[in-house]
Amino acid sequence: MTTSNELPYYAVIFTSLLHLPDEEYHGLDEKLILEAKKMDGFIGMDSARSLLGISVSYWKTLEDIQIWSQNTQHIFAKEKGKKLWYESYNVKICKIEKEYSFKR
Amino acid sequence: MTTSNELPYYAVIFTSLLHLPDEEYHGLDEKLILEAKKMDGFIGMDSARSLLGISVSYWKTLEDIQIWSQNTQHIFAKEKGKKLWYESYNVKICKIEKEYSFKR
Repeated sequence: MTTSNELPYYAVIFTSLLHLPDEEYHGLDEKLILEAKKMDGFIGMDSARSLLGISVSYWKTLEDIQIWSQNTQHIFAKEKGKKLWYESYNVKICKIEKEYSFKR
Repeated sequence: MTTSNELPYYAVIFTSLLHLPDEEYHGLDEKLILEAKKMDGFIGMDSARSLLGISVSYWKTLEDIQIWSQNTQHIFAKEKGKKLWYESYNVKICKIEKEYSFKR
């Protein structure tokens, strides 16, 4: 569960419904996290899937998100996603303005 | 998968790890959506759970989120959540600035 002390920061909320996920799809999250960790401004990523999948990646600035959108691996995933993996997806870019946590 | 044409709007990203979810917990999302639908400014909610759970609710304004935080059912869920359901959780309030979608 990603947290950050420094507000504001930015999130990309990616929601998706699957079409034809193949073996490559199942390694996708790990592969993209490894790749994102090489980028400036990457804070972390949270993922979960029921029928709907939600992945939220967190970034220091909007510019970091813009640069990430041009990453080769990321572009490959988006193209393969449209061709095969996803029935539909939605991407929301947002600014995180407040945050609080509970821990037992 | 929630979308909105009118930008900006707002999201509450709720991530959680479970402690002791009981029967009441398993009806929680549906119950909270029914309750949220009665509130001004509610747009929709997306939920998924793997080990980590992610629920994102969408609202027209920050004030709508503030009023929702005082809703009786919502307060009950937060208290029961701390007592029993959650090992930990994190809440992020954010402003959605851009959005795009793909549909096969």
